[in-house]
Parts: sequence; C-alpha cells; structure tokens
Amino acid sequence: MSGTLIGVGLGPGDPDLMTLAAVRAIGGAQVVAYPALPATPSFARSIAAAHIAPGAYEIVIEVPMTRAREPAQAAYDLGAERISEALSSGSDVAVLCEGDPLFYGSFMYLHARLAPRFATRIIPGVTSVTASAARAAIPLTARNEVLTVIPGPLPSAEMAARIEAADAVAIMKVGRHLSRIRDVLSTMGLAARATYVERATLAEERILPLSEAPDPAPYFSMILVTKGADPWL
Amino acid sequence: MSGTLIGVGLGPGDPDLMTLAAVRAIGGAQVVAYPALPATPSFARSIAAAHIAPGAYEIVIEVPMTRAREPAQAAYDLGAERISEALSSGSDVAVLCEGDPLFYGSFMYLHARLAPRFATRIIPGVTSVTASAARAAIPLTARNEVLTVIPGPLPSAEMAARIEAADAVAIMKVGRHLSRIRDVLSTMGLAARATYVERATLAEERILPLSEAPDPAPYFSMILVTKGADPWL
Repeated sequence: MSGTLIGVGLGPGDPDLMTLAAVRAIGGAQVVAYPALPATPSFARSIAAAHIAPGAYEIVIEVPMTRAREPAQAAYDLGAERISEALSSGSDVAVLCEGDPLFYGSFMYLHARLAPRFATRIIPGVTSVTASAARAAIPLTARNEVLTVIPGPLPSAEMAARIEAADAVAIMKVGRHLSRIRDVLSTMGLAARATYVERATLAEERILPLSEAPDPAPYFSMILVTKGADPWL
Repeated sequence: MSGTLIGVGLGPGDPDLMTLAAVRAIGGAQVVAYPALPATPSFARSIAAAHIAPGAYEIVIEVPMTRAREPAQAAYDLGAERISEALSSGSDVAVLCEGDPLFYGSFMYLHARLAPRFATRIIPGVTSVTASAARAAIPLTARNEVLTVIPGPLPSAEMAARIEAADAVAIMKVGRHLSRIRDVLSTMGLAARATYVERATLAEERILPLSEAPDPAPYFSMILVTKGADPWL
C-alpha cells in the first residue's frame, strides 16, 4: 500500500500562521520534502521545523536559480523520483510549501510528476498577499471589486494595463524590479496609494510607503496598491 | 487600559484550516463578535465554535442582506458601538471572519470605525480561492502568470475583459449569476477549462465541471479558470 503525497501550505513565514491541518500533516509524516536553494537553509523547513516528527526522513530538493529551465526540471525530476520511492515503500510524504502550494508554488511541478501514480492531498495556506495586507492593515477588496496579482518581472506596459483594469493590486516578487515598478505606478498617478511590504510576518518585516522602499528590494517583497475601497461601507 | 480589536481570519470553512494564531486569539478573547444574517446561524461562529472560551461574551452583528447600503451601515454602526464598549472596559475582542478579514470581508467596516481609537491586530486566513484550488487540485499560477479575482456580479463585458487579461481567474460569489458567467466563458472558448467549486472544504463540498454546475448556484461557490500554467515546468 503506497503512501499519500501531501502538499502542505505553510503560510507566509510566521509559524503561528500554519493551519491546524498543516501542523498535523507535518507531524504525522514519516518523510518530509522541501525545496532549497543550493547551499542555503530552506525557508520552508524553517517555518515547519518545530512540527517535524523526530526521526522523520528529509528529502531536500536543491533547485538552482537559473533562467534556463532544464536545471530546475532535472532537480524536480530527481526530487520526484526520491519522493516516489518513499511513497512506494508506504510512507506518507509531506512536501513543505511556503505560502500556498498552488499559488506560485513549486509543489505543482512535483504534483504533475506524482499525482498520476499516487494518492494526493493538498492543504492550502495563507498567502503572502493577504498576510501583507493584514500586517499593513490595508483593506484589499470589498463588494464587487477586482483584485489582480501581478508578478514583478512582468513588462511595464503589460503591468500598467493590468493595474489599470483592477481595483486592488498585489505586485509580488518585486526584487530588482522595484524602481521600474515605481516608475509605472508614478506614471499612473498611483505611487502615493502604494505600500511596500518586505518579509511579511517575519521578524525582519518592513512596511514602508513605496517612496521609501529599498532598491533593489529582496525577493520576498510585495507592493500593495488599492484605489480606494470604501472601508466605511 | 483598553483591549485590542483582533480581526481573526478563520479560513474557508473546515475548522482544521484555522491557523494556530487564530485558535489562540479566539481562545484568549473575553469577547467574540461575528456577523450573521438575521435569524440565521453564523457561519463564522460555526467554524470557530470549538475554540471560543467558556463564558466568553458574544456580540452578534445582524447584517441585513439588502441592496441599499443604509441598513448594513446601521448594523455596523451598532456592532462597532457594542465592540467599542467592550474594548473600553479592557476586554480584547476577537472578530470572527470567514476566509481572510481584508479580502471581501466585512471586518474592514468595523476596522474603519474602530481602528482610529483602539489597538488593532489582524490575523490573515486561508482564502476560498486557494482552498478551492487545493480541493480541485488545480495549479493556479506559476512564474510570471497573472491571477485575477472577479466577483460574480460584475457586468459581462467587464468580466470578459478581466478574464481575457489574466492567466488564471477565480470568479467568486457566483450564485444567481452562474448561467451568465457560463455564457461569458463559452463565448471566450474557456468553458471547458472552468471548474465549479461549491462550499470548498465543508462536508457539503461539490466540485464539478462548469457544464454540470447547478443553476442558480449558492452564494458560497466559485469558478476557477486556468489557461494552462505549465505544471511540469
């Protein structure tokens, strides 16, 4: 009898923002797997650490940060193969996922490789979008408003069109794109409505008006823009 | 010394999808407040029930479902007044919020009325968007893809434009708009890529191809459309 593949959303970083289901799945898994940059401690593992069962076997999936897809593909191939061996031997495998497994998460690459052959369960997590809004106390959307989530690397013209068409915007993965994004928002007259949130819910968290944001920003940073949801109703 | 207003995201409905922080905040609050439709059990309270402290005082905010804003405004005015009295007397007040407090949540109306006068904390929650994707095992977004969240009542032409401009779409609050939304997606050639999710994570959950969705749908239903994130990388 094979084990179950469990994609576990861990939330944005504060371990207290893990769900009860996540904590239980992690503690009950004989095997945990997680991505890590080469020679770097895994952020996902650091969130879940207190709940990993003593003696659990750990599969580290080292994913190189390259523009070319092949090295990452090879890493997921190898990770899926190792997870497959554990599942085949009857162990449940909890894959630790920052945020939510299916929202800009690498879990989907493992899921595509393994779900055709093994029982699978996915536990959703708190995303960095609502976590950043909560920390900055910014109401995102009400009533019939549209929220759009935009990755920072999107080209400026396309980004501007997406921002124009939404009532609230979360721009993720800001990183080295910060000054370009700031220019886009300034041109649109929205810079003053933009808030920069870095490493939301972690000890190093910073929340600043966009005009005071560091350039370049770290990868785990976000810009929230709201056009004026009426918070009073 | 006044108490703290705590907006507590409860997640999509399964009590196991509450966060550790939410459980702790609910259990530690001398007062809990929550919205309810008149003469209807509160969905928010039902999620949190097991964690409410014995003897906690409960403030029910009865919000009438009307098109006119005034009756709801009056309900939030009254609710904020009662919460304000509890906070002023030194009690912490946990406001129970389905999903996430600032993502289509009524908490923002209480926050607008009370945050200027009281210490406030907001605990984000798992949204129905990622919960529905997890239950349907649909990868939402990868890499530089754009996700747009659209309320079902949005007029068809505007809805079509928003869908056109996104890589993945979550259409919320489907309800009586189901057949109209289905027409929009059919015209765009996207109906076959759409999945209907009703009451995600609850015992009554239903996940169906859009073509088999009930019409009208209940309020707590969603349509997920993805245009083909490459789940294999």
